[in-house]
Amino acid sequence: MANKRIVIALGGNALENGKGAGGAEAQLEVVRETCRHIADISCAGYEIGIVHGNGPQVGRILLASEAAKEVTPAMPFDVCGAMSQGYIGYHIQQALRHELEKRKRNIPVVTIATQTVVDKNDPAFRNPTKPIGPFYTEKEAEAIEKENGYVMKEDAGRGYRRVVPSPLPERIVEIDAVKTLWDSTITISCGGGGIPVVENEDGGYEGVAAVIDKDFAAGLLADNIGADVFMILTAVPAVAINFGKPEEKELGRITPEEAEKYIEEGHFAPGSMLPKVQAALKFVKSNPSKEAVITSLDNAGNALRNGEGTIISYRQ
Amino acid sequence: MANKRIVIALGGNALENGKGAGGAEAQLEVVRETCRHIADISCAGYEIGIVHGNGPQVGRILLASEAAKEVTPAMPFDVCGAMSQGYIGYHIQQALRHELEKRKRNIPVVTIATQTVVDKNDPAFRNPTKPIGPFYTEKEAEAIEKENGYVMKEDAGRGYRRVVPSPLPERIVEIDAVKTLWDSTITISCGGGGIPVVENEDGGYEGVAAVIDKDFAAGLLADNIGADVFMILTAVPAVAINFGKPEEKELGRITPEEAEKYIEEGHFAPGSMLPKVQAALKFVKSNPSKEAVITSLDNAGNALRNGEGTIISYRQ
Repeated sequence: MANKRIVIALGGNALENGKGAGGAEAQLEVVRETCRHIADISCAGYEIGIVHGNGPQVGRILLASEAAKEVTPAMPFDVCGAMSQGYIGYHIQQALRHELEKRKRNIPVVTIATQTVVDKNDPAFRNPTKPIGPFYTEKEAEAIEKENGYVMKEDAGRGYRRVVPSPLPERIVEIDAVKTLWDSTITISCGGGGIPVVENEDGGYEGVAAVIDKDFAAGLLADNIGADVFMILTAVPAVAINFGKPEEKELGRITPEEAEKYIEEGHFAPGSMLPKVQAALKFVKSNPSKEAVITSLDNAGNALRNGEGTIISYRQ
Repeated sequence: MANKRIVIALGGNALENGKGAGGAEAQLEVVRETCRHIADISCAGYEIGIVHGNGPQVGRILLASEAAKEVTPAMPFDVCGAMSQGYIGYHIQQALRHELEKRKRNIPVVTIATQTVVDKNDPAFRNPTKPIGPFYTEKEAEAIEKENGYVMKEDAGRGYRRVVPSPLPERIVEIDAVKTLWDSTITISCGGGGIPVVENEDGGYEGVAAVIDKDFAAGLLADNIGADVFMILTAVPAVAINFGKPEEKELGRITPEEAEKYIEEGHFAPGSMLPKVQAALKFVKSNPSKEAVITSLDNAGNALRNGEGTIISYRQ
């Protein structure tokens, strides 16, 4: 049997312990544990592509950059994203290669700095919603709006933050390299959803301040490389409907139609489970013979072996 | 005629305007100009691999990280290096791809986060010499030495700085990916000499605080991928002997023996031209049918077409 292709989207909890403390060394510990699970998936006969989130990491990079702007110029947000790809990718490739070697699997693992093209006419640009960087007082926020042209919004009573748009990914600039490497190598690409770029008038790309949802970017990658399975790893073993209510119920294998119905009924929280279900659904609708899985890291092996977790598929 | 393979090592002046001001946006302007020259080399029929330095960039990352350590944990130096690879690589791949497209050349350009293995018994570890990061007073330096175990040294009357070792590169961990991509893709790898790692007891790699000379790393890459030409780009069109003296003389085509003689005679400044000549020499001695070129960015095309610049070669 030929190997199956899988794209794995790693959420924040696969990279950090959730306490937010400890910085890069603590992250590396969590990444090592994550890579044990990924190496097991490789041993089970899957060809793997990895996409990771970067929220807390890019947040810290931005925080440092802003806090130090008196001594060195602040970094543009696209560059912060590129830096986070180097940082997180380095940790994953170092840890995963070691876990593979422990299992006598000599498979190279590499991080590719990845730009993701977004449409400059994406409606998201007219309504920035994604908070990034430090908190400011109202007065500071007004000054920053004037000075830098940033959009600042009040964030849940905790102060003001810069908000940036979250446009949909249209195209992965470095997709050819991922395809060329795929047969021999585990690639880490589209980190943080990819560095957001738009096409400018002379046909080149230009970085923009935006956050691309990493699950949508991972779904696009899974589509582009013809993945058999698109797996989104998150904090819970399965997607639930009626979440937090007495009639809460974990979803197992569901059809795209069922997923659509649950979305319409408002079961999933925007900015949390909703985009995951949407990204999974989009992949399966474009690739009707393939499957999307949403589960936890601990449950990933069981999901592939025994069909645990939430699986969206036309095959029931 | 088959295409020739070239590894190009970009120095600081190919990435920054030397004024050190302006941050990432100003860098991008300089990188665009650099990429015009590289695209021209591609048009002349060369298959290209790029290695870049990262001194000023990693310096700024470290500066921001240290300045902000009250608000977010400081980044370890290996992670700062990984971040600089993402940052600089992103700019080069974006700008170079555009310059290639303008010339109707559809060649992918990608950055690979790269670890370079150094020997933990390298004598450099017993004598750290490479200053990194901000300046401190003597008192601050003493406190940092005690707290973090860093080695701090007085730097030319300007204050105290942390110094790290500069060991020789032994092996490029991600070399397989560069080889796999080579025929179809321009790779940017070993940025800043590569993220320095040592093998630890259980066979994995571990980041260390060190600076690997990017010209030596580029020479190793050129050797590994069988480059026909190893080109080191720097601020001057040719290497000079008796530099700064009335009898100063630019070197054209020289033999490895001549290069060795000039090194012995002390013509080249340590930490400046000396490691470039040493790296070029090392490549040619290991690959006697190949050539190494040291010249400026502006002169790179002429060097390849007309043999200008300093060329170390057994063929005279």
